[in-house]
Amino acid sequence: MSSARRQRGGGVGGGTRLRVALGARSYSIQIGSGNLARAGAEIARCTKATRVAIVSVPEVGRRYAGILAKSLRSEGVKVHRVHVPDGDRAKNLREAAKLYTAFLEKGLDRSSALIALGGGVVGDLTGFVAATYLRGIPFVQVPTTLLSMVDASVGGKVGVNLPEGKNLVGAFYQPKLVWIDTATLASLPARQRVSGMAEVIKHAAIWDKKMFSRLESVAEAMLELDPAVLESVIRRNCEIKAEVVARDEREAGLRMLLNFGHTLGHAAETLSGYRKILHGEAVGMGMVYAAGRSEDLGLAPAGTRQRLEDLVRRVGLPTAMPRFPRRAYLAALRVDKKRVDARIRFVALRAIGRAELVPLTPAEIFPPRRGGKTASTRV
Amino acid sequence: MSSARRQRGGGVGGGTRLRVALGARSYSIQIGSGNLARAGAEIARCTKATRVAIVSVPEVGRRYAGILAKSLRSEGVKVHRVHVPDGDRAKNLREAAKLYTAFLEKGLDRSSALIALGGGVVGDLTGFVAATYLRGIPFVQVPTTLLSMVDASVGGKVGVNLPEGKNLVGAFYQPKLVWIDTATLASLPARQRVSGMAEVIKHAAIWDKKMFSRLESVAEAMLELDPAVLESVIRRNCEIKAEVVARDEREAGLRMLLNFGHTLGHAAETLSGYRKILHGEAVGMGMVYAAGRSEDLGLAPAGTRQRLEDLVRRVGLPTAMPRFPRRAYLAALRVDKKRVDARIRFVALRAIGRAELVPLTPAEIFPPRRGGKTASTRV
Repeated sequence: MSSARRQRGGGVGGGTRLRVALGARSYSIQIGSGNLARAGAEIARCTKATRVAIVSVPEVGRRYAGILAKSLRSEGVKVHRVHVPDGDRAKNLREAAKLYTAFLEKGLDRSSALIALGGGVVGDLTGFVAATYLRGIPFVQVPTTLLSMVDASVGGKVGVNLPEGKNLVGAFYQPKLVWIDTATLASLPARQRVSGMAEVIKHAAIWDKKMFSRLESVAEAMLELDPAVLESVIRRNCEIKAEVVARDEREAGLRMLLNFGHTLGHAAETLSGYRKILHGEAVGMGMVYAAGRSEDLGLAPAGTRQRLEDLVRRVGLPTAMPRFPRRAYLAALRVDKKRVDARIRFVALRAIGRAELVPLTPAEIFPPRRGGKTASTRV
Repeated sequence: MSSARRQRGGGVGGGTRLRVALGARSYSIQIGSGNLARAGAEIARCTKATRVAIVSVPEVGRRYAGILAKSLRSEGVKVHRVHVPDGDRAKNLREAAKLYTAFLEKGLDRSSALIALGGGVVGDLTGFVAATYLRGIPFVQVPTTLLSMVDASVGGKVGVNLPEGKNLVGAFYQPKLVWIDTATLASLPARQRVSGMAEVIKHAAIWDKKMFSRLESVAEAMLELDPAVLESVIRRNCEIKAEVVARDEREAGLRMLLNFGHTLGHAAETLSGYRKILHGEAVGMGMVYAAGRSEDLGLAPAGTRQRLEDLVRRVGLPTAMPRFPRRAYLAALRVDKKRVDARIRFVALRAIGRAELVPLTPAEIFPPRRGGKTASTRV
């Protein structure tokens, strides 16, 4: 493995340490259990910040921001705590503008840093604000959801949604450090934990057949938060993501494979108004749909979709796209940012453990159904 | 000169061509007279775009967007034209949000590009939107003001203002090409032309003593738009800026010298609500004030301020800061983004042609006056 070097034991704060190799923008991922109270020294070292703001939703902040702040203050860092509303609807330009103003009021300057403490929404929003506040200040990801541990906190994609669609505004901006304390998952609602499994399954499905088999063995143990299973699966997931990102930081090609299930999932989320469906749930159903289309188009062997669908169902994720008229799905795809003129770079599964980009039109992704049924009834 | 290579004649579209050396983000600056109608081929080549949006204020758009669009269409590029309101107050997040929506409606995707046709406001706003729309699409600067030709279109600083201050949100994002047609200056109001002279004087004052002497000879010829003088002075200015930027792309040190006069100028603009003062006018008075402080602090030889002030006055720029209470200036400095904790990296003049960063507190920049007069009456 060339891009993400593994270092066992003896690392900062215990646990496991990975390095994401991106030249001058390289950074480390620290994974452990109960290491939150030891994060301060490493955050101070990586950001060189004399002042930080910890951004979180109220509930996560109440639970963990104090522990993190204490650790930072013992390093002589001034700490501010800022809350943003819970949920994906907080990930927009209005909330970003509020954060800019809050940081100006608190006197954050170019020698300050931001810490995203929470899930993907907090990470994406905080990262976007870090990328653009004063033309960019350092930031650190401290993910507290399974989804953000294995996905959102690695790769440098930051951004906000527009009313027209998800992640339409953003940047590629790398954190200085990712600090993962798996013990924080204990306070995560079950539905959120299940949602995070979608990206875990995705990484295995597109990249690592052996990992997929392993998940078929340990899926339940993960959901029950077995510490050893958690650490090894999260580590392997970060490795996969880090490897893909290091080989294609700005999403020119390879990295787009990580969008497996996302084009469809985003469409489902857009149509649902980001309300009823969690991101992981959308990805789960999107993957199953994409695997089905891959089979129908002769790209994947028979049985591929069934095996994926079985695992998605076993972890408790929905497997069917929500019912909206076909024309609504087609319209939702037309603002998808991966669209290149009329065609979308659809991520097809070639087999369990292997994916490929295939240019398809929205109409090929959602073919008309005989008898006038909507496409969404297909899967 | 290592960083900006000069190529004479025979270049694309005639005129002069410079190369700004920034590794993978390198780009060219083309300078000529009447070359707007020949820009299409080079824009298409540099951006690889199949679809572009030309962003301009209405008046500039009416005058020049058609010429540019025709040239692009003859290369098979689809062209959209978008207007933004005139003036610095248009450079904000609300206008950025309107552009995102407009570009989504027009179907701009990652194979599209933006063209900023106009002054610094249009360039900064369009550049910021290009940096963040779909996490970044290519953009081209076609500056039509003297200010943006010699300054804003070179260097990759893009961004918008917040109510709290100027350029507080932004990114470092390089254009794929800068295309300068000096003939467009003929339609520029005299006050704007004069305003642009501030950055021309600034480049000479901080970097090039010989250029400063030359300006003392040709200032009037420039304002009368003598084509040969224009081309050579603009070229030298772009060279200076390109050289500084190439040596310090992300403003770690050297590049901050380009802020000479700006910390003070921004404060004046903030206090005036961006309304009454043009950017160049603010920089002009800021430079004279900064030179005065440099002398007072024993950093520059006696007479430095006077020589600078003479040239600033000769081109028709104001030389005195607007009258606001000292406490208002101190407050304005506290949100300046170059602030590092209590101190600001003040750009001091050491002599005509040489500048230096000096950490000063706001109180040192605006010292209390005997007799209770405001600092602004000082110069």
